[in-house]
Amino acid sequence: MADLSSVVRGIQSGDMRALARACRLIDERDPRAFELLKQVFIHDGHAYVVGITGTPGAGKSTLVSGLIRLYREEGKRVAVLAIDPTSPYSGGAILGDRIRMQQHFTDEGVFIRSIATRGHLGGVSRSTGDVLHVLHAAKFDVVLLETVGVGQAELEVTQLADTTVVVMAPGLGDDIQAIKAGILEVADVFAVNKADRMGADATAQDLQQMLSLRRVPQGVSKMQGHTAVSTLTKGPEAEAGEWVPPILKTVAHKQEGLAELVASLAKHREFLMTTEAGRVIREQRRAAEFRAILYQALIDEVDARFADEISEKLQDVLDAKIDPYSGAEALSRSAIGDET
Amino acid sequence: MADLSSVVRGIQSGDMRALARACRLIDERDPRAFELLKQVFIHDGHAYVVGITGTPGAGKSTLVSGLIRLYREEGKRVAVLAIDPTSPYSGGAILGDRIRMQQHFTDEGVFIRSIATRGHLGGVSRSTGDVLHVLHAAKFDVVLLETVGVGQAELEVTQLADTTVVVMAPGLGDDIQAIKAGILEVADVFAVNKADRMGADATAQDLQQMLSLRRVPQGVSKMQGHTAVSTLTKGPEAEAGEWVPPILKTVAHKQEGLAELVASLAKHREFLMTTEAGRVIREQRRAAEFRAILYQALIDEVDARFADEISEKLQDVLDAKIDPYSGAEALSRSAIGDET
Repeated sequence: MADLSSVVRGIQSGDMRALARACRLIDERDPRAFELLKQVFIHDGHAYVVGITGTPGAGKSTLVSGLIRLYREEGKRVAVLAIDPTSPYSGGAILGDRIRMQQHFTDEGVFIRSIATRGHLGGVSRSTGDVLHVLHAAKFDVVLLETVGVGQAELEVTQLADTTVVVMAPGLGDDIQAIKAGILEVADVFAVNKADRMGADATAQDLQQMLSLRRVPQGVSKMQGHTAVSTLTKGPEAEAGEWVPPILKTVAHKQEGLAELVASLAKHREFLMTTEAGRVIREQRRAAEFRAILYQALIDEVDARFADEISEKLQDVLDAKIDPYSGAEALSRSAIGDET
Repeated sequence: MADLSSVVRGIQSGDMRALARACRLIDERDPRAFELLKQVFIHDGHAYVVGITGTPGAGKSTLVSGLIRLYREEGKRVAVLAIDPTSPYSGGAILGDRIRMQQHFTDEGVFIRSIATRGHLGGVSRSTGDVLHVLHAAKFDVVLLETVGVGQAELEVTQLADTTVVVMAPGLGDDIQAIKAGILEVADVFAVNKADRMGADATAQDLQQMLSLRRVPQGVSKMQGHTAVSTLTKGPEAEAGEWVPPILKTVAHKQEGLAELVASLAKHREFLMTTEAGRVIREQRRAAEFRAILYQALIDEVDARFADEISEKLQDVLDAKIDPYSGAEALSRSAIGDET
């Protein structure tokens, strides 16, 4: 591989091959990735990051493809990161629906990448966070962060986005009711896609009703994120530090409703950038990300410096000489140094 | 709260209130939880842990309810842990489909709990792993670990199970194709549920075809788990260190096919306990869990001991005085001590 500084320069001039290299270093947890990230980091970022999540079968990929087209018409450079529920064993990303984005693969203003996760602690969101900083450095205007699965890790990933769109569709299965509740709180904008199908109005009304429940003020929770906003939520617009997710109808494969969606995203971005509540959200996200980077750095450092001690203690655990909790405690104390 | 040793004794005598207390300590990341886990840990465990995952709408909860009934008929004590894709903000578990299990709530041989995850690093699987050790200590015979969502974290959780059942149903949406691929590699047994519906045979054939693709030998991947088995896979039975997931048809709400499912689970357990390949899988899982416990212990220790330093450095990051990667590196080095 070329030396790091040439990769850094390549990223900063938007060279696609340098970008792909950086993503590979991050995927492989190469120690050089950390050095690279230190060098390319931009305070306050550059790209507007839009998370796209929602129930399987709702048409997320088609919607992402439609958004790419609209942003490209505005002359914006667009990156797409697809978070796929890959097997932790093969480590390979599944491109499945990516086929729908083929039309954009030859467009030089579009960078598309699947994030392959290796099942390590906090893997999805940490790799994705690192790749986002590379995309900021490469001066992309918009990043679309699409999750294929719907689960805890996918909900966490949306917290790396400035704005999260939750995509629903009429008439999906019954467990979806449960998933919806988890999804509800990460949504900044709802898109009821396939809105030309039966039941679209019912789905929209359903969401409207769940949203009104959410408006009940709650105690500030331990986790940081939208709390400051959701406790203030009152109306269907951003006003005086309040944001209530609008519910839009789209038919992505006909490009219907997508211009309105882009307009809603712009409004939410303005809310984030110009209000006190928006400032608080951004700061909380930066704090959460700093902690995640710190924890990963700690783990990497201990893995590198105490490899032998870890192997020995592991053997003791496998031989039933010590329980894993006591073993971990002993190692952790010897790595960090005792209190006294 | 009563003192720790009385909670430990309560757990060991199977007292439900002591169990609930222990789960709460673990949920809340109370430092006493770690001490408790050291005291109750049993090498080689006790309970047989069955993971139940699969596409939304496939009828997982109904199937779990049916399995509880069968195991109870055998006189076994059963615990159910439901992994729900809760909001990281509210921290509350969504009980939604739990309603279907109401019939079992009054049964003293059944313990049912939702695992609420707080969005912290590796949260889902770490809390679940800790709770599992408490259930081993309480001498449950069977633990059913059900995931409601389908995503990276949910796939990881299945690695805490001895045997994982992937539940599918005929005729679900198209994104499911992509999810299926991720799910495929964690499956030890497939259940095509709602098998009285149109398309059940097609779904089973689909799975059969995907399984035959999986049989192509691959290089041993970095991640540990089924690798040793899947590279050896040849036939539809366990023989000479080989295991190929059987595909069963079930109609859970009519209790059809569930006895066959329980028999398949028993076969897989025997495979794990009596073959060399099974021994390797069990050892790899214990090693992976030891690392996860170690990383969490490190993070907790650093959080407790370096709270002030972390706050200061975070402020520098927010003030754009230092990038988060350099900040994390400096903190991590000062916590662990420099190389020289």
